[in-house]
Amino acid sequence: MAGNTFGQAFRITTFGESHGRALGVTIDGCPAGLPIDEDFIQAELARRRPGQSKIVTQRKEADRVDILSGIFEGHSTGTPIAMVIFNADARSKDYSHIADKFRPSHADFTYQQKYGRRDYRGGGRSSARETAARVAAGAIAKLLLRRAGLSIAAYVSQVGELALNTPPTALDLSQVEATPVRCPDPQMAERMIELIQRVRKAGDTIGGVVSAVVKHCPVGLGDPVFDKLHADLAKAMLSINACKGFEYGSGFAGVAMRGSEHNDLFYDADGQVKTRSNHSGGIQGGIANGMDIYFRCAFKPVATIVAGQESVNEVGEKVEVTGKGRHDPCVVPRAVPIVEAMTALVLADHLLRQRMVQMA
Amino acid sequence: MAGNTFGQAFRITTFGESHGRALGVTIDGCPAGLPIDEDFIQAELARRRPGQSKIVTQRKEADRVDILSGIFEGHSTGTPIAMVIFNADARSKDYSHIADKFRPSHADFTYQQKYGRRDYRGGGRSSARETAARVAAGAIAKLLLRRAGLSIAAYVSQVGELALNTPPTALDLSQVEATPVRCPDPQMAERMIELIQRVRKAGDTIGGVVSAVVKHCPVGLGDPVFDKLHADLAKAMLSINACKGFEYGSGFAGVAMRGSEHNDLFYDADGQVKTRSNHSGGIQGGIANGMDIYFRCAFKPVATIVAGQESVNEVGEKVEVTGKGRHDPCVVPRAVPIVEAMTALVLADHLLRQRMVQMA
Amino acid sequence: MAGNTFGQAFRITTFGESHGRALGVTIDGCPAGLPIDEDFIQAELARRRPGQSKIVTQRKEADRVDILSGIFEGHSTGTPIAMVIFNADARSKDYSHIADKFRPSHADFTYQQKYGRRDYRGGGRSSARETAARVAAGAIAKLLLRRAGLSIAAYVSQVGELALNTPPTALDLSQVEATPVRCPDPQMAERMIELIQRVRKAGDTIGGVVSAVVKHCPVGLGDPVFDKLHADLAKAMLSINACKGFEYGSGFAGVAMRGSEHNDLFYDADGQVKTRSNHSGGIQGGIANGMDIYFRCAFKPVATIVAGQESVNEVGEKVEVTGKGRHDPCVVPRAVPIVEAMTALVLADHLLRQRMVQMA
Amino acid sequence: MAGNTFGQAFRITTFGESHGRALGVTIDGCPAGLPIDEDFIQAELARRRPGQSKIVTQRKEADRVDILSGIFEGHSTGTPIAMVIFNADARSKDYSHIADKFRPSHADFTYQQKYGRRDYRGGGRSSARETAARVAAGAIAKLLLRRAGLSIAAYVSQVGELALNTPPTALDLSQVEATPVRCPDPQMAERMIELIQRVRKAGDTIGGVVSAVVKHCPVGLGDPVFDKLHADLAKAMLSINACKGFEYGSGFAGVAMRGSEHNDLFYDADGQVKTRSNHSGGIQGGIANGMDIYFRCAFKPVATIVAGQESVNEVGEKVEVTGKGRHDPCVVPRAVPIVEAMTALVLADHLLRQRMVQMA
Repeated sequence: MAGNTFGQAFRITTFGESHGRALGVTIDGCPAGLPIDEDFIQAELARRRPGQSKIVTQRKEADRVDILSGIFEGHSTGTPIAMVIFNADARSKDYSHIADKFRPSHADFTYQQKYGRRDYRGGGRSSARETAARVAAGAIAKLLLRRAGLSIAAYVSQVGELALNTPPTALDLSQVEATPVRCPDPQMAERMIELIQRVRKAGDTIGGVVSAVVKHCPVGLGDPVFDKLHADLAKAMLSINACKGFEYGSGFAGVAMRGSEHNDLFYDADGQVKTRSNHSGGIQGGIANGMDIYFRCAFKPVATIVAGQESVNEVGEKVEVTGKGRHDPCVVPRAVPIVEAMTALVLADHLLRQRMVQMA
Repeated sequence: MAGNTFGQAFRITTFGESHGRALGVTIDGCPAGLPIDEDFIQAELARRRPGQSKIVTQRKEADRVDILSGIFEGHSTGTPIAMVIFNADARSKDYSHIADKFRPSHADFTYQQKYGRRDYRGGGRSSARETAARVAAGAIAKLLLRRAGLSIAAYVSQVGELALNTPPTALDLSQVEATPVRCPDPQMAERMIELIQRVRKAGDTIGGVVSAVVKHCPVGLGDPVFDKLHADLAKAMLSINACKGFEYGSGFAGVAMRGSEHNDLFYDADGQVKTRSNHSGGIQGGIANGMDIYFRCAFKPVATIVAGQESVNEVGEKVEVTGKGRHDPCVVPRAVPIVEAMTALVLADHLLRQRMVQMA
Repeated sequence: MAGNTFGQAFRITTFGESHGRALGVTIDGCPAGLPIDEDFIQAELARRRPGQSKIVTQRKEADRVDILSGIFEGHSTGTPIAMVIFNADARSKDYSHIADKFRPSHADFTYQQKYGRRDYRGGGRSSARETAARVAAGAIAKLLLRRAGLSIAAYVSQVGELALNTPPTALDLSQVEATPVRCPDPQMAERMIELIQRVRKAGDTIGGVVSAVVKHCPVGLGDPVFDKLHADLAKAMLSINACKGFEYGSGFAGVAMRGSEHNDLFYDADGQVKTRSNHSGGIQGGIANGMDIYFRCAFKPVATIVAGQESVNEVGEKVEVTGKGRHDPCVVPRAVPIVEAMTALVLADHLLRQRMVQMA
Repeated sequence: MAGNTFGQAFRITTFGESHGRALGVTIDGCPAGLPIDEDFIQAELARRRPGQSKIVTQRKEADRVDILSGIFEGHSTGTPIAMVIFNADARSKDYSHIADKFRPSHADFTYQQKYGRRDYRGGGRSSARETAARVAAGAIAKLLLRRAGLSIAAYVSQVGELALNTPPTALDLSQVEATPVRCPDPQMAERMIELIQRVRKAGDTIGGVVSAVVKHCPVGLGDPVFDKLHADLAKAMLSINACKGFEYGSGFAGVAMRGSEHNDLFYDADGQVKTRSNHSGGIQGGIANGMDIYFRCAFKPVATIVAGQESVNEVGEKVEVTGKGRHDPCVVPRAVPIVEAMTALVLADHLLRQRMVQMA
């Protein structure tokens, strides 16, 4: 009810503020007997971590995860898995200069209005730092999905006006991690990096698009009506800070197509039903059809910029807000592991739910 | 868990197949004391009904709603409101010609794989006829929202390549119902209607975009983290048949903007905090900030077309599937009331949830 | 949130008022492929129906169930199963004499206070008539459980001071339906019937106990911590009108035992682990251990009696309330199928949930 | 779905094993603006803590709570409150002697069967140590309820065959904490203490009953049908380790009463509707009527005893299990704060839910 829980069968609840004692997550519903590779969880967190490259924020956060429960002798036990990331120097900084000011296009104003109070330090609960907890939980979801043969890959397909138009099937997704911008096309990656650096030098920020592909999704995942697989993915993606749009398969471009060109014709490929095209993006009627699932997520430019901006404070007085330098000029490189984590959480949930739809 | 329930505080569960005995919905959580205008519910259903104009399907369905419970002496009582729409001539038709065939880009194949069986008549549970139940429930949500001063208006902003680029604030939304295509710009409406008729004559179908605007949303609605107001809207919209994408505020176009131009500066307007621009689309950090909420939904071309299409049947044999003439050439005119209904359901849910976030 | 939904994986939502248009239930989560025997559903309803014998209320209600969705060609399809029981002569009676009076030990006062209004006809939503919907849903749960080999039997073990002390293992449960009081011991049944008739002639009512036994429950059902199998059973039973207490296994009597006599010692019975005694009532740590599950439910005397009783009306004035003759003198004979239905709903839910607890 | 979450509006999820790194709980849904008294939380934990008196287990556990999130400047912020209790010497002990043995009437066997593996150290997740997390969460629920004027008091009303028959209204509940057994009647307390000491010396254990009273519960709390206030209380109590039965109001004794004596007659007490008797236990139709709520919970004798007991191991071989000395001879003195905590969680949940049932 209060919005901090995601999923039904594989269910997570995150907690924690940017500058409180700790962030964390509990996973309820992870099946017993899953081997848990703690190094993998830590590696996923490293992909999201600030300070990992020149084009992301230079803040230093170790993001070391402590597993408090649910694992015994290297395997999940079926009981809740709680993971905590302590905030190293939570109390050290001075936030009094923004304590009563509403930063433009941040959540300061709306939190204050909603709750009548807020932890203003570093955005509190509205900070993207909360997504570290999702990445930790998503890592465990990925371990679960791997056992079922699914793979998830996200990548940056646009930064500002620089758009990579190559379809995902034509990309070498093993190259995503080869550059700090996480675009698998080396030339485009270089141009994107250069653009981000230019924007950063100008004290400004810029948006981007993260694309994702799921391969080997079992036919049948997803529920009809409200919990369509793509509807749950849409919610998952839009729940990520700064995400403004979601489209799957043909998406907004499909609007201009005729049914006769958009329809994906079925054929039999050696005993397996496939479709000749994949405008459906691997999902029909909300249910995976076995083809690649692909979708795209729009991210707005980060709201924190260097230049002073007009705003108001809690009593409605006109004030100026100035950004500090250590923020991301562009969010999408670090959004890639978050998009993957949320995708993994949706799929793990539906993978378990699928066990219940037919008579044994 | 099985995907037929939507909402938490204002919660609906729909049921029914396209050609079964009946469709219906139960609403659990409607507060007691809401005056229920049954004519309004029926009027909303009429906006979704087939056969209402020349540019939609010519099927005849009365869609008369029976309220079975939860209303006494013209008011909601706080108990579940069950509404049923009986299917007039459920058993009359012959569907044996498609009983074992998978229609391209429909849900026939995925349902069969998921459940091992399916009601193949008219698409069964995957039919867009299910949305009639949502419209009935959405009508009651609208009655609730009206009391709180909110208004919701959706309209067609694109059909095929014909895109209306006027921002919602510059449109006369009272003109939405003036044309059967539900585009508030009369010239564009005419062109859209002509395009749809041309596509229909060609036995083909075409996609479109539905835009929506929410006015007077109380500041504070929406939850941080997973149940962000726009995340719940995204899920709601993507759960509508044929919807392929969602964007709010600046959406995908915002990607190419700089933070310095995208940020919405706060100012005090006679004691009320407003923003000078509204790229945020009325939602910041997942929570309504009091500005207009606006978003757009992409709909693919309807999958049923007249021309024969290659496909396979349940045993993998190659077959041809032919559409019947009485389907929508373009889904967006009838999608408008459905988008509104789903919007109303999301907002009613968050309106009630908002009652619990602060100490009394 | 509003209390009309029960279960998680096998989830029901009931609706309807005693004297409204209809009662009903939707089941969401019934697996596809379950053969549905409609006669069995109707037979279960007949066991709950008023007017079935001399010792229950003589009201005539047909309780014919209409299945509106979710069944195709005799099998469940995995989509919601909606069932409706129309109220034959809903509007015929005059309830104005109790419209503003609070009947003692009924829910009139609390409903009025909670909601500010209520459907006062026959108790509205608080009427035990709502349990007809549970029995219909429970019948489908029973069909599901049968396939898994479980059996459920409830019976009357006490009426007023007449208590049957024979342990369930020593009873011939095939005799439950042999007498209208549903006590499997013929002598005790006769005495109970006589007592109920005596109480009815005095215009009074009397309480009783329903006991239940579940056989062949798979080891492992039930969740640790909050959703312990017996905790869910307790909630299920206490949610039945007039139920005041629940105990399982040794129950309240176990309080006086020593650990050394109460502990159930494990032994190996031809490769199957069993316990020598069964004070645990088949459940340890909230999880079924494979032994018989047994529990008892206390029901208070029905609140409606013939004699006039002091009360107040909606404006606090002193009034007298008089009961009409057609109410149950003792609720337990008709509570037997309701206890069974609620038991079946709990077990069906946990049976499905159990599919998700281990890696495949 | 996996049973570690309780409540809907005020929702907790507990995690942690007896001998893992830590136990803990997240509360989602605590309204913003509640002053949080950390000393009170710690004091409540001290009431549950082992080693607090001569008649409970002599294990030493500090049970110091760390609040990780959700509190800022001494008040709840509306975001999740995470609390952790680290296990001091988690890894120090040797449990290999019971690693593969099933202790009689513990959850060893059922956990192993359910999950295929288990953390066997000190019972793992099935340990009553988990209830420390509930007491911490319950303390915050109590702080919330106090603001609304409600008070909760539990006490020991029976140990073995020693039953206190004084009705709760005639007891001085301020004396509950005066003795280590938490029975408010000093003479009975002395006899109970003596009995427990005798049982302990014999290496045995004994059961008991905890009674509870809620005063000043607002009229209207509780939902009709499934989430009746007493049904939620029943589930809450039965979810406590070793609890075998629940009854409220007249309970099992009410079975033998006639309706004419059981009915609680309404009267007007200076503008407030009250009942002359209170067999309803303060709840009618599942909804609080403003009178005292009272109920009783049966607890079985603790399963761990000193004498050797016959059992089997994981491969079905006959083994002997011997208890260690440091376990509770009787669980009810330490169950008192747990019963109160669970009561507070149920009431806090319904207090918030009640905000949504009427039009504003």
